[in-house]
Amino acid sequence: MTDLRIADCRITPIAFYDPPLLNNGGCHQPFALRSVIEVETEDGVIGLGESYGTRSLIDAVAALAPDLRGMAVTDLNGLWARARTRVQGGMPGYTGDERLLPRVVSAVEVAMWDALGKATGQRVVDLLGGQVRETVPFSAYLFYKFAGHAGQPADDWGEVLSPERLVDEARRFIETHGFRAIKLKAGILPPEEEVAGLEALRAAFPEAPLRIDPNGGWHVHTALDLLPRLEGLVEYLEDPTVGIDGNAVIQARTDVPLATNMYVVAQSHLPPNMAQDAFRVILSDHHYWGGLKASRDLAEICRIWGLGLSMHSNSHLGISLAAMTHLAAATPNLTYDCDTHYPWQVDEVVEGGRFEFRDGSLSVPEGPGLGVTLDRDALARLHQNYLDCGYTHRDDESEMQKHQPGWRFQRPRY
Amino acid sequence: MTDLRIADCRITPIAFYDPPLLNNGGCHQPFALRSVIEVETEDGVIGLGESYGTRSLIDAVAALAPDLRGMAVTDLNGLWARARTRVQGGMPGYTGDERLLPRVVSAVEVAMWDALGKATGQRVVDLLGGQVRETVPFSAYLFYKFAGHAGQPADDWGEVLSPERLVDEARRFIETHGFRAIKLKAGILPPEEEVAGLEALRAAFPEAPLRIDPNGGWHVHTALDLLPRLEGLVEYLEDPTVGIDGNAVIQARTDVPLATNMYVVAQSHLPPNMAQDAFRVILSDHHYWGGLKASRDLAEICRIWGLGLSMHSNSHLGISLAAMTHLAAATPNLTYDCDTHYPWQVDEVVEGGRFEFRDGSLSVPEGPGLGVTLDRDALARLHQNYLDCGYTHRDDESEMQKHQPGWRFQRPRY
Repeated sequence: MTDLRIADCRITPIAFYDPPLLNNGGCHQPFALRSVIEVETEDGVIGLGESYGTRSLIDAVAALAPDLRGMAVTDLNGLWARARTRVQGGMPGYTGDERLLPRVVSAVEVAMWDALGKATGQRVVDLLGGQVRETVPFSAYLFYKFAGHAGQPADDWGEVLSPERLVDEARRFIETHGFRAIKLKAGILPPEEEVAGLEALRAAFPEAPLRIDPNGGWHVHTALDLLPRLEGLVEYLEDPTVGIDGNAVIQARTDVPLATNMYVVAQSHLPPNMAQDAFRVILSDHHYWGGLKASRDLAEICRIWGLGLSMHSNSHLGISLAAMTHLAAATPNLTYDCDTHYPWQVDEVVEGGRFEFRDGSLSVPEGPGLGVTLDRDALARLHQNYLDCGYTHRDDESEMQKHQPGWRFQRPRY
Repeated sequence: MTDLRIADCRITPIAFYDPPLLNNGGCHQPFALRSVIEVETEDGVIGLGESYGTRSLIDAVAALAPDLRGMAVTDLNGLWARARTRVQGGMPGYTGDERLLPRVVSAVEVAMWDALGKATGQRVVDLLGGQVRETVPFSAYLFYKFAGHAGQPADDWGEVLSPERLVDEARRFIETHGFRAIKLKAGILPPEEEVAGLEALRAAFPEAPLRIDPNGGWHVHTALDLLPRLEGLVEYLEDPTVGIDGNAVIQARTDVPLATNMYVVAQSHLPPNMAQDAFRVILSDHHYWGGLKASRDLAEICRIWGLGLSMHSNSHLGISLAAMTHLAAATPNLTYDCDTHYPWQVDEVVEGGRFEFRDGSLSVPEGPGLGVTLDRDALARLHQNYLDCGYTHRDDESEMQKHQPGWRFQRPRY
């Protein structure tokens, strides 16, 4: 009989090139941090996970790893219990971090599902309840951006700060990947300019479902003033202002569903959100909701309460993309095309190189588990990047100040 | 590689002896109806389930069975989709039954988990997320009862219609099985007499957590009048009156948590219950919530919304008891000892005979899957009971009328 007990758990921080993309918090740094998690069973099967590359997460997973030895890869209750003890009680220098716990669990949990699938010859999509769609649709994720990183030449996307250049960016995304829906990362320029960008996208792509995400960058009154231009233009309005209370005021004034990946980001946020009818679409993300099982739970809750559901992403590589695709393929009530930063990346850490979208969609990777295996040369190279770049956490504000001295983070800004 | 596809699905109705137990709906008939479900994989592994024995359920599972051939035993999404088509659209004589759908799914779903476990060498408790408790505690489920069935001699429990006889019944339950908590099925006698019964139990068993379940048999004003006697006496008050609205009125007037297995019995009841704060404890039952996965989902929802959780039961045999035990052992937030009718039964359908409680608790059965196998001689005998007894559905009202001519079902009664 297959031995499903964990023999070892490893986490390797990596860094990969990221363009100078803008958001309400500042500018992306030249390298995005990430981590690769390996859970190895007593039988030598290796399950893979990918998560954040911030120091606290890496330290927490490394501290938890010895506690996992001997635990079955099916034991999600055991994982939560051990992580709770380690993250909230037993980690030197930590007094408890509500945000960290589900991130630590997720990092390991995905690798446990992958190991279970590889050890028993089952795909993760099947272990999560069965495939309900042939392919998973993703959206074009547009960013305003600088031409190049501070002190560096322009990249081949060039500067994107106007409606015209936004349309060019969208066209390249759609021609290359076939995406149907378009999301605009906003909260950077004055809101009227950003909505003008959306209107230019509408003119250029009359059929494309549009979305805008100011990342909480607008005041309530700003969002209310813009509603007449946004209604009929966007399929959802993402995090227009700060908090459940503020967004509930906006949702009460419009039929455009408000979506969030900022203010309903943990299970404890669900009851107040339902009570206040703040957000009607949850942009799920298994990396911070506590893994694939917790994300399936969230989907069920959205179905029961009648909320819409889609998927959020940060800068990531193929292990995350594979996990997102398996999860989305097993989720009946995925009501909007998923977001992904993936087309902005050029590196990859899995064998076979980068995933290719067809008509804006991905098929579920073939083979057991997540259907991906680690490219160890790539892992070594990306780990060296991590060591060389010297970052230990993401800092978009400092990066922005290299372009605009004196720039300060503000939320809401407008 | 193991072939996890379903080759066949069978359902066998059975009937077993049941004592003349009383409830708000009348009197238990001499035979309780039940069914045994077998899901057989292409490799010949047989997974077991147990469910209701009512005609509509048996017909629906039988009609669904051919649709399941070729489907993987992991494919819960596929099961729901096929059951939805068959129960709500494709069954001759049915125009849709919201109650039936999750019952049909559950009947098959448990057998799919058992088959998956047996095929891959894993216990169901592990497949459900891992064992969190060594043993699962159950409660003593007290009923008022007649001495014997209509026209038949007294059984060895005799008549139980007074506080004194209730205490005798409880003593026998506790001495035989070691139960800690005591539940009184109520809604039969005048409420003051039933509360007097509870008070007699308190005097005889000073440490026992007590519960009372009038099955919606009381008016709101009756329940409110009784609150001063119930507060400090019971750990929860179960379904005192009818409906979410009515019970919310009572819950608003007391700190005793209201529990339910009558008015929050489907996922669609959860949002109104949370919005109205009607019930603070859900008595889950995998047989009608849609199976083990849906029951784990319900547990997560209870945890997130801060509700208590325990387990309801009807008359059942060992396959159900094994499934309940695996589920409860995998559920961290089981906040009250589970209910079971099992000690009132004398028959069994699994090999090795009847389960034995130790200190009121059960260990998780050993071995893969649910850890039980079918006793085919017992199955044949209990199926013959079913054919001989001639029932096609449960009818406590008619049975009651054999004891008390002219008795009519009323809810609320008092």
